[in-house]
Amino acid sequence: MAGTLYGIGVGPGDPELLTLKAARLIAAAPVVAYPANPRGDSQARTIAAAHISPTAEHLPLVMDFGIDRVQANAAYDAGTKVIAAHLAAGRDVALLCEGDPLLYGSFTYVLDRLPDDVSVEIVPGISALTACAAEARRILCQGDDPLLVLPATLDESALVAALMPVASVALFKVGRHLEKVARALAAAGMADDALCVIEAGRPTMRLVPLSDALASGQGVPYFTLLLSRRASPQ
Amino acid sequence: MAGTLYGIGVGPGDPELLTLKAARLIAAAPVVAYPANPRGDSQARTIAAAHISPTAEHLPLVMDFGIDRVQANAAYDAGTKVIAAHLAAGRDVALLCEGDPLLYGSFTYVLDRLPDDVSVEIVPGISALTACAAEARRILCQGDDPLLVLPATLDESALVAALMPVASVALFKVGRHLEKVARALAAAGMADDALCVIEAGRPTMRLVPLSDALASGQGVPYFTLLLSRRASPQ
Repeated sequence: MAGTLYGIGVGPGDPELLTLKAARLIAAAPVVAYPANPRGDSQARTIAAAHISPTAEHLPLVMDFGIDRVQANAAYDAGTKVIAAHLAAGRDVALLCEGDPLLYGSFTYVLDRLPDDVSVEIVPGISALTACAAEARRILCQGDDPLLVLPATLDESALVAALMPVASVALFKVGRHLEKVARALAAAGMADDALCVIEAGRPTMRLVPLSDALASGQGVPYFTLLLSRRASPQ
Repeated sequence: MAGTLYGIGVGPGDPELLTLKAARLIAAAPVVAYPANPRGDSQARTIAAAHISPTAEHLPLVMDFGIDRVQANAAYDAGTKVIAAHLAAGRDVALLCEGDPLLYGSFTYVLDRLPDDVSVEIVPGISALTACAAEARRILCQGDDPLLVLPATLDESALVAALMPVASVALFKVGRHLEKVARALAAAGMADDALCVIEAGRPTMRLVPLSDALASGQGVPYFTLLLSRRASPQ
């Protein structure tokens, strides 16, 4: 009898933003997997630490954010094989994912590699999208508002084109893309009220208006979400 | 000393999809408010029932989904006044919100009515967006994918225009808009793989391909979220 892979969202950083379901399934898991950096640090494991059984086997999946696509694919191939071996041996695996597993999560790359007949249960997590809006006390969307969720990595022209008809935008992972994103928001008339939510759910969380972030000249971290909503939705 | 309003997301229906923080704050609240229909039924209260203190004062905010905008505004005005009176008297109020408070939540209409100096803490909740994707085992967005979140209430031409440049779409509250939405998805080349996630988080939850939902001729409920993602993102 093969095991089940639980893809578990652990939220953006605050251990209290785990769901009751996530806490229960993590506590019951004989194998707990999580992305880790080459030094072995793992934000997902840290968030969930209070719930991991002392007898659980730990399975760090080493992912280096700086590596190229070929190396990343090799790391996902290897990690998925190790997980699949545990499942084939009848052991359930809890794979911890920061935020939500299916919204820009590294879990999506594991899911893409698993055969359809593997038993998978996905537990949604609080995403940076809603956690940042809550920290900022900003409405994401209301009534007939469309909301566009964008990765800041897109080309500037793609950003401008995407923003033009939109009432509300959430830009993920702003980091070194800050100035490009600011130009695209300005071109779409959405820069004035834009707010950076930096490292939501962590002790270092802070709210910085886009104009202040630009003026400081210091840039913003990778885990910065930028929110802007038109005063009069189109 | 004025009280604090806690805007608490309770998720889409499964009581286990509450966060640990939501459970703690609901249990501690002397006043618990929630949207209710004219018969007094409240999905948000039902989801959170296990955590509400037996000594808490209940504050149902009667909202009739069928009423017009003038009546809805009057109901939000009245509800916000009652909440503000409790806060002014020094009592904290937990306002329970299905899904997430800031993503198409009725909480947004209360927040719009509160002065900026009222103490508000917002606790993000699992939204239908990520809960439906988890039920459907569907990736929402990956890598450089933009994700567009749309209310199905938009005009057909607005839907088609919004969908054209998009890699992945989540349409909220499909209900009686099913056929219009299907035409817009077909025009954007996104209909073939589209999936309806009906009443996620409830015992009545089911997954129905868009083509089957159309062929049945039976329509879909209001709480239907439609997911589609291009096989080759643009």
